[in-house]
Amino acid sequence: MVRLRLIPREEKFFDMFEKASRNMLEAAKLLQEMLSHYEDVEKKVSEITEREHQGDAITHDIIAKLNSTFVTPFDREDIHHLTSAIDDVVDRIEAAADVMLIYRIERPTPELQKFASILVRSAEEINSAVPLLRKRDRMKEILNRCIEINRLENEADQLQRAALVALFENPTNTIDVIRWREIYGQLEEATDRCEDVADVLQGMVMKHA
Amino acid sequence: MVRLRLIPREEKFFDMFEKASRNMLEAAKLLQEMLSHYEDVEKKVSEITEREHQGDAITHDIIAKLNSTFVTPFDREDIHHLTSAIDDVVDRIEAAADVMLIYRIERPTPELQKFASILVRSAEEINSAVPLLRKRDRMKEILNRCIEINRLENEADQLQRAALVALFENPTNTIDVIRWREIYGQLEEATDRCEDVADVLQGMVMKHA
Amino acid sequence: MVRLRLIPREEKFFDMFEKASRNMLEAAKLLQEMLSHYEDVEKKVSEITEREHQGDAITHDIIAKLNSTFVTPFDREDIHHLTSAIDDVVDRIEAAADVMLIYRIERPTPELQKFASILVRSAEEINSAVPLLRKRDRMKEILNRCIEINRLENEADQLQRAALVALFENPTNTIDVIRWREIYGQLEEATDRCEDVADVLQGMVMKHA
Repeated sequence: MVRLRLIPREEKFFDMFEKASRNMLEAAKLLQEMLSHYEDVEKKVSEITEREHQGDAITHDIIAKLNSTFVTPFDREDIHHLTSAIDDVVDRIEAAADVMLIYRIERPTPELQKFASILVRSAEEINSAVPLLRKRDRMKEILNRCIEINRLENEADQLQRAALVALFENPTNTIDVIRWREIYGQLEEATDRCEDVADVLQGMVMKHA
Repeated sequence: MVRLRLIPREEKFFDMFEKASRNMLEAAKLLQEMLSHYEDVEKKVSEITEREHQGDAITHDIIAKLNSTFVTPFDREDIHHLTSAIDDVVDRIEAAADVMLIYRIERPTPELQKFASILVRSAEEINSAVPLLRKRDRMKEILNRCIEINRLENEADQLQRAALVALFENPTNTIDVIRWREIYGQLEEATDRCEDVADVLQGMVMKHA
Repeated sequence: MVRLRLIPREEKFFDMFEKASRNMLEAAKLLQEMLSHYEDVEKKVSEITEREHQGDAITHDIIAKLNSTFVTPFDREDIHHLTSAIDDVVDRIEAAADVMLIYRIERPTPELQKFASILVRSAEEINSAVPLLRKRDRMKEILNRCIEINRLENEADQLQRAALVALFENPTNTIDVIRWREIYGQLEEATDRCEDVADVLQGMVMKHA
């Protein structure tokens, strides 16, 4: 008797989504750790860069699997969007960390640590939401995670705004203005990309739950 | 007797598109008004921010309706693109207005007022084009609106270019260079997003007219 | 007897893709030439701007043909992505050249010439890959081109990184920091867009080869 292997094949996608979101959470945590203990920066940045490479590899695997799979558990487009959105978060985290090196930042600001904390919390929400995709009857729980991610993105917006006001209020060193504007911008973009992940997840719930 | 409600259901999408484009036009007009009478800036920015929230709510409604509707008057993807493109225009207008506050701009430049005027005219073209989607026999009129939006976007490009040349020709205050570059950039992006709206509209006409 | 004209009609798309990629390669070469012989800059930039207009016209033709063609040689979405990605490369090349004028750059840096060389090589890879789309049995050769484009994009990343480190290490003139950061950014974006072209090509090979 031939057993159909439809479900096991679908499982592979869920495994890969979870691998991607775990990797993203690890990158966020490494950034937070680096900002709390700002030493050996070069080594710590290279660990985050490793997460970024790992993210690229996972993305590559998902796209390859997508192109070779006939029946997918979700719309191909949604799988594609979810994968790139998660990858974009990791890219931004890595870019922000690397900018600390490039611009020879000597000491993180308190705002920067707040950004890292928002990012870790957003990444945790995503990482809790993604495994719920496996269970149609629990998919609706994803929506609450999405609401929280949206709230955190708003918090990051306000944080960036306040940091910029402070930066331009009394700009003693113009080069510092350029530096910090860039770093805050990268981190705000990272939370924007978390919101993109939430948007894709929300759309997937709408269609399937 | 059961009456099919296919047409009324379609109508809802057109109503929502028009609501979105009217909201966008109002945001552009509020920006123009703020720049002509540059006082009570904080209050005026908050009115534009309200438009931005309103835009988010309309976008949300359209996407929700899209996900719950089986037969849509246009391709789902086109509806999605049109909606986000209009929303992006409002976002940029709000960002530009907010930057005036964040960077404590004391007085708008003449270039800024020209930008606002281009934006209002682009928004008016979009707002005149969107209702024409309702009538297949008049859809082709949309194309002339799109040509004008493209022309306006070109005008904005030239304006930004000239403003940047002036800014870098004689840069007395570097912080001002950073400030104005950002504000002009946001406004030029707003007209770019108007062009995106025109591109989507044009594609929809091509398919249906 | 009626002869079906299915194949000739498809040919038109391939012709247009090749026209677009040749135009992109010419733009890259014009930039490289301008940076090697940095004189008559205004005239040379206007030649690159002409390429940009030409690119817009080709893109317009492809989209118009897409909207009026029932059977296309590839997924409509892929044709659309490929076309805009190639167009984006030209846009960035033109923007980078124009910024040289706007910011009144007096002399190109060695880094800038290296960027131009990477761009020309990426454009050459794309220009060699695109004609292979015509032949299903040779499509797989495209993948090697894509690998090389990815390698070149990495090289551009490293180049930008090194240029920024140098720029911020000893920032004597803040306005110069702003200027060069922008120019390097545009060029790095151009190689990013080349990578986007490679991604689309790779996806097309996966589906059809």
